[in-house]
Amino acid sequence: MGATGVVGGEFLKLLEERSFELDSLKLLASSRSAGKKLPFRGEELIVEELTEESFAEVDLVLASAGGSISKRLAPAAVEAGATVVDNTSAFRMDPQVPLVVPEVNAEDIASHKGIIANPNCSTIIMNVPVWPLHKVNHIRRIVVSTYQAASGAGAQAMTELEEGARAFLEGKAFTPKVLPHPAAFNVFSHDSEIGEDGYNLEERKMILETQKIFHAPEILISATCVRVPVMRAHSESINLQFSNPIRPDEVRKILSGAPGIRIVDDRKKNYFPMPLDASGQDDILVGRIRQDLSEPHGCGIEMFVSGDQLRKGAALNALQIAELL
Amino acid sequence: MGATGVVGGEFLKLLEERSFELDSLKLLASSRSAGKKLPFRGEELIVEELTEESFAEVDLVLASAGGSISKRLAPAAVEAGATVVDNTSAFRMDPQVPLVVPEVNAEDIASHKGIIANPNCSTIIMNVPVWPLHKVNHIRRIVVSTYQAASGAGAQAMTELEEGARAFLEGKAFTPKVLPHPAAFNVFSHDSEIGEDGYNLEERKMILETQKIFHAPEILISATCVRVPVMRAHSESINLQFSNPIRPDEVRKILSGAPGIRIVDDRKKNYFPMPLDASGQDDILVGRIRQDLSEPHGCGIEMFVSGDQLRKGAALNALQIAELL
Repeated sequence: MGATGVVGGEFLKLLEERSFELDSLKLLASSRSAGKKLPFRGEELIVEELTEESFAEVDLVLASAGGSISKRLAPAAVEAGATVVDNTSAFRMDPQVPLVVPEVNAEDIASHKGIIANPNCSTIIMNVPVWPLHKVNHIRRIVVSTYQAASGAGAQAMTELEEGARAFLEGKAFTPKVLPHPAAFNVFSHDSEIGEDGYNLEERKMILETQKIFHAPEILISATCVRVPVMRAHSESINLQFSNPIRPDEVRKILSGAPGIRIVDDRKKNYFPMPLDASGQDDILVGRIRQDLSEPHGCGIEMFVSGDQLRKGAALNALQIAELL
Repeated sequence: MGATGVVGGEFLKLLEERSFELDSLKLLASSRSAGKKLPFRGEELIVEELTEESFAEVDLVLASAGGSISKRLAPAAVEAGATVVDNTSAFRMDPQVPLVVPEVNAEDIASHKGIIANPNCSTIIMNVPVWPLHKVNHIRRIVVSTYQAASGAGAQAMTELEEGARAFLEGKAFTPKVLPHPAAFNVFSHDSEIGEDGYNLEERKMILETQKIFHAPEILISATCVRVPVMRAHSESINLQFSNPIRPDEVRKILSGAPGIRIVDDRKKNYFPMPLDASGQDDILVGRIRQDLSEPHGCGIEMFVSGDQLRKGAALNALQIAELL
């Protein structure tokens, strides 16, 4: 579902790359895209219109066509006998639906009733490096600020960032249509709805989803989500407060052996995680690991991470869930 | 000193804009730039080579030619009878030298012995909105993550960001020469030296300078300084922990009446501080003001600010000091 979108495209690439076993693949999208041809494993597949009748004979649905479409059609897919790995926010906070980052809570998949939710991109990118630390020294509090790519707002936002940059360089006026503010050579607070408490929806997702995935509603979390003019990888400045003292070398050691992570932390060369390096990569890059000088009990750690929003932040994580299924 | 640099250019603009009273203006720069002509108040001034002999008959020196040059020549200027407002890091942490943000500690100017230091750009942009709050409810801890513009690395870095963006859009390879990493469509940890504790020099400046300016060495501060592809305004995600409970409406009220600040905090329109809006402006834009949900005692506030790095972050703050002198 959503085969012609930017995450859909990433799914196609990853199904090929990872030699995902399948007998046949059905590309579903809106009526607008029906009839388009997309290459897959040397063939051309024709995109079909997504309807309630799309799911006969389907075992597995990878859904990334938007929250309202998942809400409407995922139950029909389950009814038809399929299991749905849903990339949208539709079912993430449903207590009946497991919300899974395979490196964190793969075992939660077992309890599914037809739908498994894939977390928000910023959540996944934070959870992969934070979980191995939480396992050995419980986290009390997280304060995170994000540097989020245009890809999170879809393919059109990526194009708009390019067009805006071109206009800026040519000194021409540019009015954004997809994003609420000019993206090129600018930074703006995440373009999701603001709640009464002043947090936007993206921030709320990072908070609530992390608590659910970690099975730790007691972790205190604050997030500030910000868009930066980057194409497809998110970065995050993460401040962690642990229950007990912890040292940076301990953190480095734990994360070196953890799945889905690559340490990029070269102080001499001033080389740390960057979205350009994370783009197209499966691993979350982790660096700037240091003792938080503002935490007086030696329980604080600062770090900076970058991860591909379309891969681990979306299609890869969902496909890993499908592989576990 | 440093008349042909990007901050020098901003000084010239501001001296005109603010009708700064002066009998004559001497433009000083390296031998390379000597002989260049720069427009000022309808005339063309010729740039002179900066030497130890430059300061005869000079009352006031605005210095932005780099730390090593200030270290060498500021004492000569003082010797010759001038007062130096130094934009470099050369004397900032010298206990004999006042470090001043006029909105915070204007009274410290009185104790000067010839040199007054202008703080680091990120420090100023954080201090202007944080000080009015600290005055009414002492701050215990600050955790800040920055989104810093290319201008902080000089005019050449700004040009490199443009060239890199152009190359990226044309699909061409680009090797940066001024900055250590590609700036366009990327984000990277601040390009200053990393200390043994893992903090870079820019972060150390934000920490130590704030403690000095506030006369509050007890404030716990952690900073993560990051460059983003933005031309000339820095943004900062600031997490504040106060001594006593404080509410967002209280913060908004205090900051509404404070100098050098404009509140930009429209939740309905999703309109908050952005570097594009802050560029060319004197005020620090402040928004995203909200109760920190991760601080259990109601003592936490989150906010997001943007301020022009070349104006309030450099030339404007120095000129305000000169005006007070």
